Amino acid sequence: MLNFESDYIEGAHPLILERLAQTNMEALSGYCVDKYCESAKEKIKAACEDKDAVVEFIVGGTQTNQLVIDSILKPFEGVIAAHTGHVSVHEAGAIEYTGHKVLTVPGHNGKMDAKELDEYIADFYADGNHEHMVFPGLIYISFPTEYGTLYSKQELTEISRVCKTRQIPLFVDGARLGYGLTSLECDITLAELAKLADVFYIGGTKVGALCGEAIVFTHNNEPAHFVNLTKKHGALLAKGRLLGVQFDTLFTDDLYFKISKNAIEQAMVIKKALAEKGYKFLLDSPTNQQFVVVENFKLPKLSEHVKYGFWEKVDDDHTAIRFATSWATSEEKMKELIEIL
Amino acid sequence: MLNFESDYIEGAHPLILERLAQTNMEALSGYCVDKYCESAKEKIKAACEDKDAVVEFIVGGTQTNQLVIDSILKPFEGVIAAHTGHVSVHEAGAIEYTGHKVLTVPGHNGKMDAKELDEYIADFYADGNHEHMVFPGLIYISFPTEYGTLYSKQELTEISRVCKTRQIPLFVDGARLGYGLTSLECDITLAELAKLADVFYIGGTKVGALCGEAIVFTHNNEPAHFVNLTKKHGALLAKGRLLGVQFDTLFTDDLYFKISKNAIEQAMVIKKALAEKGYKFLLDSPTNQQFVVVENFKLPKLSEHVKYGFWEKVDDDHTAIRFATSWATSEEKMKELIEIL
Amino acid sequence: MLNFESDYIEGAHPLILERLAQTNMEALSGYCVDKYCESAKEKIKAACEDKDAVVEFIVGGTQTNQLVIDSILKPFEGVIAAHTGHVSVHEAGAIEYTGHKVLTVPGHNGKMDAKELDEYIADFYADGNHEHMVFPGLIYISFPTEYGTLYSKQELTEISRVCKTRQIPLFVDGARLGYGLTSLECDITLAELAKLADVFYIGGTKVGALCGEAIVFTHNNEPAHFVNLTKKHGALLAKGRLLGVQFDTLFTDDLYFKISKNAIEQAMVIKKALAEKGYKFLLDSPTNQQFVVVENFKLPKLSEHVKYGFWEKVDDDHTAIRFATSWATSEEKMKELIEIL
Amino acid sequence: MLNFESDYIEGAHPLILERLAQTNMEALSGYCVDKYCESAKEKIKAACEDKDAVVEFIVGGTQTNQLVIDSILKPFEGVIAAHTGHVSVHEAGAIEYTGHKVLTVPGHNGKMDAKELDEYIADFYADGNHEHMVFPGLIYISFPTEYGTLYSKQELTEISRVCKTRQIPLFVDGARLGYGLTSLECDITLAELAKLADVFYIGGTKVGALCGEAIVFTHNNEPAHFVNLTKKHGALLAKGRLLGVQFDTLFTDDLYFKISKNAIEQAMVIKKALAEKGYKFLLDSPTNQQFVVVENFKLPKLSEHVKYGFWEKVDDDHTAIRFATSWATSEEKMKELIEIL
Repeated sequence: MLNFESDYIEGAHPLILERLAQTNMEALSGYCVDKYCESAKEKIKAACEDKDAVVEFIVGGTQTNQLVIDSILKPFEGVIAAHTGHVSVHEAGAIEYTGHKVLTVPGHNGKMDAKELDEYIADFYADGNHEHMVFPGLIYISFPTEYGTLYSKQELTEISRVCKTRQIPLFVDGARLGYGLTSLECDITLAELAKLADVFYIGGTKVGALCGEAIVFTHNNEPAHFVNLTKKHGALLAKGRLLGVQFDTLFTDDLYFKISKNAIEQAMVIKKALAEKGYKFLLDSPTNQQFVVVENFKLPKLSEHVKYGFWEKVDDDHTAIRFATSWATSEEKMKELIEIL
Repeated sequence: MLNFESDYIEGAHPLILERLAQTNMEALSGYCVDKYCESAKEKIKAACEDKDAVVEFIVGGTQTNQLVIDSILKPFEGVIAAHTGHVSVHEAGAIEYTGHKVLTVPGHNGKMDAKELDEYIADFYADGNHEHMVFPGLIYISFPTEYGTLYSKQELTEISRVCKTRQIPLFVDGARLGYGLTSLECDITLAELAKLADVFYIGGTKVGALCGEAIVFTHNNEPAHFVNLTKKHGALLAKGRLLGVQFDTLFTDDLYFKISKNAIEQAMVIKKALAEKGYKFLLDSPTNQQFVVVENFKLPKLSEHVKYGFWEKVDDDHTAIRFATSWATSEEKMKELIEIL
Repeated sequence: MLNFESDYIEGAHPLILERLAQTNMEALSGYCVDKYCESAKEKIKAACEDKDAVVEFIVGGTQTNQLVIDSILKPFEGVIAAHTGHVSVHEAGAIEYTGHKVLTVPGHNGKMDAKELDEYIADFYADGNHEHMVFPGLIYISFPTEYGTLYSKQELTEISRVCKTRQIPLFVDGARLGYGLTSLECDITLAELAKLADVFYIGGTKVGALCGEAIVFTHNNEPAHFVNLTKKHGALLAKGRLLGVQFDTLFTDDLYFKISKNAIEQAMVIKKALAEKGYKFLLDSPTNQQFVVVENFKLPKLSEHVKYGFWEKVDDDHTAIRFATSWATSEEKMKELIEIL
Repeated sequence: MLNFESDYIEGAHPLILERLAQTNMEALSGYCVDKYCESAKEKIKAACEDKDAVVEFIVGGTQTNQLVIDSILKPFEGVIAAHTGHVSVHEAGAIEYTGHKVLTVPGHNGKMDAKELDEYIADFYADGNHEHMVFPGLIYISFPTEYGTLYSKQELTEISRVCKTRQIPLFVDGARLGYGLTSLECDITLAELAKLADVFYIGGTKVGALCGEAIVFTHNNEPAHFVNLTKKHGALLAKGRLLGVQFDTLFTDDLYFKISKNAIEQAMVIKKALAEKGYKFLLDSPTNQQFVVVENFKLPKLSEHVKYGFWEKVDDDHTAIRFATSWATSEEKMKELIEIL
């Protein structure tokens, strides 16, 4: 059966497994201070063109969001996200578990609007009662968003400007960063992103790794004793080499970008083919997630041949379903999918 | 200067101070197990016509919301409130501080709609991904709401029915309960409320006491070791007599209801007078909080004579301001206010 | 029946009730910004001879410990207390509830030793693994201690010196501060204490008030947005006047110290009388708590006439029981107690 | 340079890497519901001879301790551990971060004593004030302990009996379980352990895996919505296959036990050789961690040739250092170490 359920259904890129095998018996210290972690950090800093950056490796995405947000927020602060943001909806309350509120602004196809964000903050400070409310202390956006959409350079710059004016740091969730940066519609580079964001992460789990996310604190602004905070969150990996080797491989010879591109290419072919066949889309996604509106009666049949993600009810007769491509999607499988649809 | 800023600007009803003085030198055990607490609990249970009820006294309202919600929710659950609910907006993240998310449904003049509530819960369970989301574990409503509005008996019954069907308990924040139950539009009694709610509290702070809220767990459903949880929250008052004597007084000879009625009477006179003068209201409030829409240029002048609550911007030229009456509002001051307006 | 169970069995000093009654109908803003709170704060700052101090009022002791400790500690830090400290044992895990560990050093009759404290900190930093441990971030001592004992000026100075050297702030729990400062063995003044401690509180609940503790941040070192943090903890009292009027009264004409003295005088008479009758003490307490070792078989009889606090088992045949005097203990009751014993 | 610093310095057992490579391109659902996870769970249940067991996979040890303890404890409870337990000392306050206190009993070479445990609980309930204290709600022991020592079957049975009598569940931290069960002194089997413990985990990270711990809830006693709690803790791995394939391999053909045995054999040879050379040990460890007392002046020289773990200062002239063997320790390296020493 075909499987387009998500972008984490396969294991790791073969080069990663190879490097893990090659380095397997070397004796290395734990907790991400080994030579592979060091090398990976240097390569990521170079790719970000940011000498002052501090890079840290964490196993998973929700864990990273929880740890970064909790570490940066002061006790009287919450994080602002789009109401559709991953931290707002799909992390089982992991942010609130740390004692912090997720404040929300409207999400437009997954994206927040710089102007609405600014108004939210202005309204907060205009309220005479704001000492009884949660202070906005961090802005969270996803790139690409949970809906596969992308902020333009212009939009990111405007959000960043709001953040700077209001003196609130900007955090970019890059669980699918590769699929954003290699999108044909993307007009921003990794280095430019590193300038605009105060902290972001480069997703490995969905882009070729077995697990792992690389946090980049962009301006030497890592919270004090971050290793301790990581341990306190239960998020410090003993065999840090597992993360070091993977990211070292991904950031050698642009592997991260090359394999990301594959996902985009397959997704764009599917998108075009389905549009030609008359399918409608929930929204116009330029990345590896495509949301197709299907008549409900067709779903049982479809499910016999292909696994997809249920996304949302559109109306009584239609459902939006998601097809996700990845670094591992082959041209062959992509063609089979088009055939079936 | 006149002061209609809030319903907690005066001290306590004189009878309360008298009783505190009379009982002052009696030697009593601490932590709300003295005879005055016992007597007050019995009187409240009688007023609620609920023998199985368990009553507990807490100093303040946010503290009570925080403690009740945290004690009832299981670790995978959050509380559903109207997006304008006090716990959603004005408690500085006190609920999230306990590790639980406040989930929101739309507030209509402060009230949630039973049907929208039911749909929210249905949608939650329809989402294939709901193990990655926060389970709805408690419904929070305010009676009266933060906007002074009231649920009808019919509306409360419908919300309660949703709760029972979904097996989710119902919690009623009664910080201003007296001003709700004695409103001319109220069609429900305390005993009826006690049947519909699984837990609620009878507000003292805003209705004649120096401090204090009486939690009523209505069906012998107090969480295990509630005293310990109260202590853990820093909410266990050493000299529990302070709460016991106050509630014992408030629930002797219907004092609580008699003094609540005064607030309603004064508020209704103000409401009528202002309507006659052509003032518009933000909404139609049948309780002690009246929200009047005033042209911005009039505010500075008004502020010279009377203290009021800033509520919200209506448009560029108008602001909604709040006048709150209370058990202590005199006819004389009420007339002065009307004169000024 | 006689009652020496604790020092919070009576209500408030009569002057406090009088002032509450006098000011009762004045319209005042809430949340501790009224004129009585302001006046009380000024008087306390004057008594502490510290112009830069910031004073805040909180309802209860555990609440104060929880709020102060949580507000001061950084996320990677815990608080060091004696293993017998109130925060270590008798607050139902209120400190851990905030996410912070209580680290312990040995308690010697309730007191920590400056040298052992310093060694604890030195050992922490000597451990190569200390990023995996909880950093010491605050020192907590009680004055008097939970065992009624007192630190000498010399001992306090040494602890303070360790704190300054290690750059860790010192917090003094003064739930019974009056009974410490007026003890015959006390060789330190309130102003001197305010110089040595970074933050401490002046207990009202056990020293004449219905409720209330006055936190003193001694060197303009109040945590940012402390009002918000107080609200988030559910600890912000709506009718702040209740605390303001009480502390304003206690710090007018040295009332706080005068009434504390009464407790000490009664306690010393009891102590002397019992010693003469051959009673043994668990330890030598110079304050209002006296711990007497009694043969178990005598306890049932004693319980018929007097309420006391069970303290601890001494051996199979003996139990230490506590008699507490207070501002309200009369000479007459004290004599009755001696008679019975 | 030789490296005996810890038991997690190498990667994974080669068979694991092989299986990861073989299964790499299979499309599998995430979050530990794939066929390899299912197979691994069945094999573990069979090895435990417990059909009713529920098995869950988590990435790391501190994470597992934090998640299990937080999920099992009720809000008024804490966990009892030896004062030397990993959760007491070396997890950066990860347990307290969840809001729960770690209560301690004395550790004797890392082990708690059943009698002292029982007395602790008895004393707790004997204290009239225990509603103001943290209830003991879970017992935590490590097997082997952090000092390499082992509980005998008799000792475990006694602790388990205390737990059953007191109705408190028993949790066994098995981060090094393989090295305990294959020790020559071990007189208990995995199946017997599964009968005595209410929950325990089988450590993978230190016993041949890249990462991963397998929690076993032994009597169908998994906390409700454990997947949600795992997600809320940020501990739910997206590509669950990484854990499934590893544990499936470890529990095929007794690999887990075979490779554990190697660590024990090497450790015993080192132990014997050093004893013959006159070295003293901090304690008598029958497992893969050996704690040798070395004169301080010898350490710099030693450090030139071999990496070891600093354990603790013994006296002014001596230090205890740790040599850890593992599944990966070769006879050759072991001999080199003996030579050097």
